[in-house]
Amino acid sequence: MAKLIDVRTAAGLLKQCEDAYILIHMNPDGDCIGSGYSLQAVLKLLGKRSKVICVDPIPERFHFLLPEEPEEDFPAKYVISVDCADESRFGSLRETYAGKVQLCIDHHISNDGYAENLLVEPDASSACEVLYKVYCELGVKFTPQIAQCLYTGIATDTGCFKFSCTGADTHLFVSEIMREFPEIRYDLINRNMFDVKSPSRIRAEMIMLSRMEYYLDGKCTMIWETKEICEENNINPKDMEGLTSLPLQPDGVEVGITLREQDDNWYRISLRSTDRINVSDICARFGGGGHVRAAGCQLQGTADEIRETLLNAVRKALEA
Amino acid sequence: MAKLIDVRTAAGLLKQCEDAYILIHMNPDGDCIGSGYSLQAVLKLLGKRSKVICVDPIPERFHFLLPEEPEEDFPAKYVISVDCADESRFGSLRETYAGKVQLCIDHHISNDGYAENLLVEPDASSACEVLYKVYCELGVKFTPQIAQCLYTGIATDTGCFKFSCTGADTHLFVSEIMREFPEIRYDLINRNMFDVKSPSRIRAEMIMLSRMEYYLDGKCTMIWETKEICEENNINPKDMEGLTSLPLQPDGVEVGITLREQDDNWYRISLRSTDRINVSDICARFGGGGHVRAAGCQLQGTADEIRETLLNAVRKALEA
Repeated sequence: MAKLIDVRTAAGLLKQCEDAYILIHMNPDGDCIGSGYSLQAVLKLLGKRSKVICVDPIPERFHFLLPEEPEEDFPAKYVISVDCADESRFGSLRETYAGKVQLCIDHHISNDGYAENLLVEPDASSACEVLYKVYCELGVKFTPQIAQCLYTGIATDTGCFKFSCTGADTHLFVSEIMREFPEIRYDLINRNMFDVKSPSRIRAEMIMLSRMEYYLDGKCTMIWETKEICEENNINPKDMEGLTSLPLQPDGVEVGITLREQDDNWYRISLRSTDRINVSDICARFGGGGHVRAAGCQLQGTADEIRETLLNAVRKALEA
Repeated sequence: MAKLIDVRTAAGLLKQCEDAYILIHMNPDGDCIGSGYSLQAVLKLLGKRSKVICVDPIPERFHFLLPEEPEEDFPAKYVISVDCADESRFGSLRETYAGKVQLCIDHHISNDGYAENLLVEPDASSACEVLYKVYCELGVKFTPQIAQCLYTGIATDTGCFKFSCTGADTHLFVSEIMREFPEIRYDLINRNMFDVKSPSRIRAEMIMLSRMEYYLDGKCTMIWETKEICEENNINPKDMEGLTSLPLQPDGVEVGITLREQDDNWYRISLRSTDRINVSDICARFGGGGHVRAAGCQLQGTADEIRETLLNAVRKALEA
């Protein structure tokens, strides 16, 4: 159903479109926000109006990326999605927009081809990296806001250029952005994206580190995010999100597991691997999946039962 | 006394030299190690032998940057220093090499000009960034070891491209290195440089976070690294080093202070600023100094006295 297109064709479609809605995903992150608002600004430079549509509010720390003028209200003549691998990523807006996306620009290899026209580059670090190429093809002159959107999207999706998705193009494009806008305080963007934490978040990290469990000669670590821990330590459950890299901190760890308590003895489980172990394979055994070094699944049972189930699976993978 | 030279002249001197000693600084970090061993490898490509000289042992996590073959022993005919702003950085080797450095390649604006020939680029993120230009001028074809040395030096000195010293050239050069050597596992280098921690280090961070003191409406934070805390919690004092970024984690902090207990009620004090406050000015009042956003000084007194002295100085700076 979807037509795979290249950067040039995507640029052509943007030149022709009118009154676009730009869909970004639920729980919006730096990449989809940077993608959405940079695209809105680029369309404005092309003389077109557009709206960024998200089912969830934009977190405050990304507000510096939003345009100053209020958004106009108008019906959509063209529907674009950015950084959304499938329509479930629209959240409850799926009912409104399913089957209606005319152009999707993305970097997820798992993109299921839901859009009429599909520009997907799985080797790109981020949707912003793909969009950078589209904007260059369009020949628009960036504004500082566009530069900040692209930088933030690329930096957040690469963990500040730390992860394996970071490539030669990633650094090259960022170099070009910084050359054109040396006055932007990239270091402050990075500080706000990566270093600044709320007191509740600092407590959450501390407590999870202090309760980290070490197994299999230190090759496997586990942290348990339970409702009891949040209540006892006055931690906002939101501040327990994204702690999945903590179990990988200790030297020698190969698999780090984060278990998040749900209702009725269900646990949402994230597995991270430092290098050798394919955690996607492990999660697949329990009906889950994901990437080689980051995957997830759900299990029901007591903590002891789940611990033993997971340790058996990890032990086998380590021995293989 | 020192002659300021450009990249081309430095390349010319390297072409002419024979039997070089390459001095790197005490407490060696990624940048001086990457600089020293990449230079040794480049000189080898030019048919010259050289030795990297450091007063301290190279920490184990940098051993992947070292050459496989053992170093030859020979007397120095030419003495080079890299990443050393002044001769005190040689540690006790200063006695042997003071006044003898014929070529210094560095990026510190505070370089005091101790060498006969001086290539200093204060806008470069790292000594490795300066050396990258010298190697390009020499026209040598990089080996994977040289690429890893340069990447590691640049990544560690920029906090993985997070700090304000990161520029357009930084990203461009890294892009060129990654383009030539896509197979190098930069993500694993980053993991080992930035994420992996010993259990004692994890304990040190946890305890410092839990004991962090908040002052001046949360705009100033302090952590105290005392001998008592190390002893009580079985923390290797080495693992207390480099925790100076912790006090900057809380949202809203403007000045983060780390105080390290020495003998006789002396404290070694590091001040970090997130943006607005010039901590070099504050430290200068107490006989210290440094950069605008990272500076240090030493004070003698009880914890209460020192706390009050520093808070008064920070309060004035915040009000100015």
